[in-house]
Amino acid sequence: MRDHTRRDFLKSFGGAAAAWPFAGRSMAQHGEVAEAAGQRRVSGSVLMPPDQWKPLGYAVVGIGSIAMGEVMPALTKTKRSRLTGFVSGHPDKARHFAQLYGVPENNIYNYDNYDQIASNPDIDAVYIALPNSMHAEYTIRGAKAGKHVLCEKPMCTSVKDGEAMIAACRAANRRLMIAYRLHYEQYNLEAMKMCHEKQFGPIKMVDAEFSFVIGNPKQWRLDESLAGGGSMMDIGIYCLQAARYLTGEEPLSVYAQTWSSDPGKFSEVEENISFLLSFPSGVIANCYSSYGIDGMDRYRAAGPQGWIEMEPAFVYSGLVQRIYKDGKFTTTWPSTWDQFAAEIDAFSAAVQLNRDIATPGEEGLRDMKIIAACYQSARTRQSVALT
Amino acid sequence: MRDHTRRDFLKSFGGAAAAWPFAGRSMAQHGEVAEAAGQRRVSGSVLMPPDQWKPLGYAVVGIGSIAMGEVMPALTKTKRSRLTGFVSGHPDKARHFAQLYGVPENNIYNYDNYDQIASNPDIDAVYIALPNSMHAEYTIRGAKAGKHVLCEKPMCTSVKDGEAMIAACRAANRRLMIAYRLHYEQYNLEAMKMCHEKQFGPIKMVDAEFSFVIGNPKQWRLDESLAGGGSMMDIGIYCLQAARYLTGEEPLSVYAQTWSSDPGKFSEVEENISFLLSFPSGVIANCYSSYGIDGMDRYRAAGPQGWIEMEPAFVYSGLVQRIYKDGKFTTTWPSTWDQFAAEIDAFSAAVQLNRDIATPGEEGLRDMKIIAACYQSARTRQSVALT
Repeated sequence: MRDHTRRDFLKSFGGAAAAWPFAGRSMAQHGEVAEAAGQRRVSGSVLMPPDQWKPLGYAVVGIGSIAMGEVMPALTKTKRSRLTGFVSGHPDKARHFAQLYGVPENNIYNYDNYDQIASNPDIDAVYIALPNSMHAEYTIRGAKAGKHVLCEKPMCTSVKDGEAMIAACRAANRRLMIAYRLHYEQYNLEAMKMCHEKQFGPIKMVDAEFSFVIGNPKQWRLDESLAGGGSMMDIGIYCLQAARYLTGEEPLSVYAQTWSSDPGKFSEVEENISFLLSFPSGVIANCYSSYGIDGMDRYRAAGPQGWIEMEPAFVYSGLVQRIYKDGKFTTTWPSTWDQFAAEIDAFSAAVQLNRDIATPGEEGLRDMKIIAACYQSARTRQSVALT
Repeated sequence: MRDHTRRDFLKSFGGAAAAWPFAGRSMAQHGEVAEAAGQRRVSGSVLMPPDQWKPLGYAVVGIGSIAMGEVMPALTKTKRSRLTGFVSGHPDKARHFAQLYGVPENNIYNYDNYDQIASNPDIDAVYIALPNSMHAEYTIRGAKAGKHVLCEKPMCTSVKDGEAMIAACRAANRRLMIAYRLHYEQYNLEAMKMCHEKQFGPIKMVDAEFSFVIGNPKQWRLDESLAGGGSMMDIGIYCLQAARYLTGEEPLSVYAQTWSSDPGKFSEVEENISFLLSFPSGVIANCYSSYGIDGMDRYRAAGPQGWIEMEPAFVYSGLVQRIYKDGKFTTTWPSTWDQFAAEIDAFSAAVQLNRDIATPGEEGLRDMKIIAACYQSARTRQSVALT
């Protein structure tokens, strides 16, 4: 069934997917979700007749800011996906949102009885929106309960955990996707395409920086045991992703330096990290993330004929693309794309139509390995080779 | 005389100079030239009565593109400076420009009889606009001939040469300035001031990138013996300068990687260099220069309250400043400032009024040491400490 569907899909796509050179993924895998989410399409796609799938039911695991502010509202806009359950340590909060979103109270679980979702047919998948260090446990338990797993970034806090998550999903024959939402966002998809098609000639430099000033000093992001690291884990990972998806290459080595301006606030994790990635073609990416700088949010990929830039590049909406090519500038309107809706429907489509996923567990694991190398480089002040 | 003039100047400046913390230099030293060059002023200044000085007469040494396109036209706009001689290996070219700019034919010299400028009272100073590796010899011979020296960047091609240039000018009691024109440019001066006054809070990151696609593969910039290096020497030095003048700090260590996409064209010097500078406050600067990328020309300095950016930052005119502070953006019109006129008149003012120079030989020498460390780092793939 899977091969058949995939073949039909590629056929309908007119062969463009095969010509698109991004690390073995097809443009279609990124782009098809646009139509599924009812938004403007990036490129040609085909929808299966609606009777061949039912909307995928999601339980949101963890009711923090990203779940409340982004995931739940997005699930009111999705076409292939709906909100059908909650897993939370706060029963009152869960009941509040269950009422708000019309979710039956029976579909509320806590961290102890989480595994009982196995017997709930309303729940096909879980959206893991917990602090980083909990991603592995709740992904593995979700898969063992027979559910597909869409897990927030970073995938986890160690390479070992990432491998265990992939193995658990594979063993349970469940799909696993990391919520790298920019792989499902129009302007970023266009940027990837332009770079991979060498529209500026071969890319020779990428830079990327992402920062915000972190508030509450008691939050989990500053707790190493929950976050697994500092600004690198939370936002530097976007810079790393951009460097990888714009070049379409995997880094051969990294060099990184970390520092913090406030040793009290940043006693466990780094405030600032500068990291440099060296790619096989020679291109170097300069990246910087910080929990102590306001409002940096951009990347640029540059070649002999010019460059493409996004600023903002990484936030949830309002992204702006700026292109300099052959001596002329063009710029776009800010995006209004709902990145979360697109991302969630992309996962649903992959499950429903048995398609490949643009950002599977393996994609998250690759980042975990590179981030571990960055931290090793920062500790040793040596360049670290990646294998 | 020197102390007296300097004291009067500082007094008239109302004490602001003393409060301005840039590495021992005063804002006045940078800013006063604005009025001397007849352009909009950056900050308060005072001119000496005109009878206390006569315009400084400059011989331009080397008639290449920067001399023809920038230095000579600028010398028609200066108030304290005038074009009075040429030193060139091309007598026809020299005669052509002597006629064009009303310079007596007797004031044309070649590289053999250059030292005879000693007896020419029309020539008070030389503007060294030769390929990099010739800067040392022609600076030293100029000083020995009793002339003040304004020398293009990079100062030279080795630390040893830089030291010899400073020693020669000191021995001859002549002034030496490196033509770092952005120290005499309005928006860059404002950027320095805002950063040093911590208007964005303490700066936590600087990035800078400068690139163009180099044309003629036979040009001296690609010849190691003439250029002393590749894009780092020619344009990366602007990124290095920006990191230093925006932070107002000197780097403790550097890490750099070089690479070239075309081993034929770049057989002697690097096409691309990425370098990372670590400063005492912790701040890291990420810099990139390239001879193979079109149109990168910017820097940003960022802190907890926002950032200041210039793009373009480094070219001769049309610079634009962009500020993000407290959640709001502001941007300037492109600059129309004549950077070369301001820079040349600043040197004349320093000679005429016996003032300190914002960018003396020592400033150039510091860059030569850092550049040497960058190349060492690129060779060894190790971070290199600066002493």
